[in-house]
Amino acid sequence: MLSLLDLRARISAGTLTPAGAIDLCRAAIAAREPELHALVTRDAAPAIPETGPLAGIAVGVKDIIDSAGLPSQMGSAIYAGWMPRGDAAVVSRLKQLGAVALAKTTTTAFASSDPTATVNPHDAGHTPGGSSAGSAAAVGAGLLPLALGTQTAGSVIRPASYCGCAAVKPSFRLIPTVGVKTYSWALDTVGLFAAGVADVAHALALVTGRPEIDRAEAGSAPRIALVRQDFAEAPEPEAEAALARARQAAERAGARITDLALPQELTQAWDRQRIIQNYEGRLALAWEYDTQRDALPPLVRAHLDAGAAISPDQYDDARRHGHHARRVLKGVFADFDAILTFSAPGAAPATLAATGDPRFNQLWTLMGVPCVNVPVPGHRLPVGVQVIGRFGDDGRALAVARMIEGALRG
Amino acid sequence: MLSLLDLRARISAGTLTPAGAIDLCRAAIAAREPELHALVTRDAAPAIPETGPLAGIAVGVKDIIDSAGLPSQMGSAIYAGWMPRGDAAVVSRLKQLGAVALAKTTTTAFASSDPTATVNPHDAGHTPGGSSAGSAAAVGAGLLPLALGTQTAGSVIRPASYCGCAAVKPSFRLIPTVGVKTYSWALDTVGLFAAGVADVAHALALVTGRPEIDRAEAGSAPRIALVRQDFAEAPEPEAEAALARARQAAERAGARITDLALPQELTQAWDRQRIIQNYEGRLALAWEYDTQRDALPPLVRAHLDAGAAISPDQYDDARRHGHHARRVLKGVFADFDAILTFSAPGAAPATLAATGDPRFNQLWTLMGVPCVNVPVPGHRLPVGVQVIGRFGDDGRALAVARMIEGALRG
Repeated sequence: MLSLLDLRARISAGTLTPAGAIDLCRAAIAAREPELHALVTRDAAPAIPETGPLAGIAVGVKDIIDSAGLPSQMGSAIYAGWMPRGDAAVVSRLKQLGAVALAKTTTTAFASSDPTATVNPHDAGHTPGGSSAGSAAAVGAGLLPLALGTQTAGSVIRPASYCGCAAVKPSFRLIPTVGVKTYSWALDTVGLFAAGVADVAHALALVTGRPEIDRAEAGSAPRIALVRQDFAEAPEPEAEAALARARQAAERAGARITDLALPQELTQAWDRQRIIQNYEGRLALAWEYDTQRDALPPLVRAHLDAGAAISPDQYDDARRHGHHARRVLKGVFADFDAILTFSAPGAAPATLAATGDPRFNQLWTLMGVPCVNVPVPGHRLPVGVQVIGRFGDDGRALAVARMIEGALRG
Repeated sequence: MLSLLDLRARISAGTLTPAGAIDLCRAAIAAREPELHALVTRDAAPAIPETGPLAGIAVGVKDIIDSAGLPSQMGSAIYAGWMPRGDAAVVSRLKQLGAVALAKTTTTAFASSDPTATVNPHDAGHTPGGSSAGSAAAVGAGLLPLALGTQTAGSVIRPASYCGCAAVKPSFRLIPTVGVKTYSWALDTVGLFAAGVADVAHALALVTGRPEIDRAEAGSAPRIALVRQDFAEAPEPEAEAALARARQAAERAGARITDLALPQELTQAWDRQRIIQNYEGRLALAWEYDTQRDALPPLVRAHLDAGAAISPDQYDDARRHGHHARRVLKGVFADFDAILTFSAPGAAPATLAATGDPRFNQLWTLMGVPCVNVPVPGHRLPVGVQVIGRFGDDGRALAVARMIEGALRG
């Protein structure tokens, strides 16, 4: 993989130019993209800033996020060739920092569940996950040092786990969603993919203008709750093994780990996340559903059909459970610095007809708390673990994730 | 004015067809629009559904809200002629109900403060208010029975007060903002303008699929807190007189009214509303600000300049004060069914160079609570009062507003 921090260090040292760093990406794309199918469109001749803290960093932009001059095709024929007027807020910010929006990356239609053409960079017979398929695969395959995704259920952390890269789904609305196609306004969260945890932490600090995110420390003995999410179906042995290895590594590094069963309010909220997602999706995609339903691929269409059958009362009830669970979770974090849990049910499934299951991600998206995928080495196909922090304390979550990542390597 | 309920009653009775109702609007537009300048573009030959609970209802759509087939020009040359791909969620919903998106209405640039060409329908030398200038003026002048606006500080309630129509700024996100140009994601709220309170209540119930909004009752003796918002500069005599008349009318109708000074946490939140608006505006409009700053009109540019100078810490502090104040306000509503206060500092100012002051609206937008403008008859230029309800209890707020409206007429 291409490490953002490594590229930036070489540029700062004068051994690599920003244009040279972009050329590295172009070469990697030329070598691997023909089989990977991670990119939808590319900017053939982008302006390459010479200065800025992200000069020389090529970014992949999920194709539901606007980037001026490139179409936003939403993974759907309904938006074939559709040109947005300008950049999404997060893309503007990246450009301000000197980064180059080099390519749009594949997305499942409207960031739902219908698979893309992208394959897993570690085995072309396996899914890269979704919905941010292209962003995860492009970073995991070493095509790009940074990519943007979005998560409504599990669309950042799961594909990162499957593709073997680091990723952060930050606190809700820490990164603006302006210029991002909406599926669920209460859930949609912009996230970042990069090679390692330090790379995503650095990028998040810059994108948000919050340098403290990059400076946070885990401390010598962070208190970590190990949460198995027993309310979700059991994971596969690979995920169990990865979580066990991460636990041991963290303990070796000094962390104090306690097994924790979450209060039942969190199970109740988890149970209702899909209600919010489907109900809001039906409203957010009203124009597409009402005027071009037959052009929608089957899985997103089925989700929207389900959304159409949900009453406002059911939706209000789900929102109330979500609010209540957020307060309960705040109490849990009085005793812990971070939660450690599964990123996905296992390694990437051996299929290109599905994108995997977000069941270990849905609760945390609804809670709005920061989530980090930490790749766990030692498996044939990548498997990650998920580190979760307090709402608004993205720096701490990333610091604990970095500590675990380091301990796993050491 | 054209009453939505009246038009619908005539259509239901068979004395008016949906096409005939649209023609009434076209005739009113032909008569008054040449001096009013409330409309930006019109659909010359819209499909007119024969059925649906809003069949025959022509809607004005603020020009930051997407309506398929009509440009979304945002009140700015930067978006001249720009065609969105489809309908905003709220426009789709209105069409589903049988309504016709007949025209786009003027907006200050990006729904900020630079005046539009629209004049007040009651005196062409006075502002109609902003930012939803065209929607308020078009309804107030009897061009349309329903119009969509948005409020980030005071852009629905204030122009409704100035133009003499009813309006509701519903609970935050009760109407989706998908397909609406973002200024501040924590504040932007879609609202409705119509002739009377019963008209807006009926429309809101249909748009949200929540019939209970239209069925709520004020009860025989609602408990109303009269709030002067002393933290804001004092209002003008016209606003004082309107509030006094509304109070007397409500008391005659049986309401129990108590003068209430709000807890200081609400003053502190009010003080910080602008920080959130400007900070988020700078991020939301990053592409426009970074690439075409000179094309922005002076007031919005100054607001965004101010936003660029706000630190994440100041923004976080403002958000925390807002959250805290929402909890305190919830406590206030334990003792009251509604709050009665000023809609605006006075009648529409005698200028076309400014859109008036949102200082009596900003707190309530930040609180996310439902606000209703009730026109108070008896002034040369319109003046309204504002009825505010609990978060999520839009029906009750509208019922109390309807009671006061009726008492003022009786």
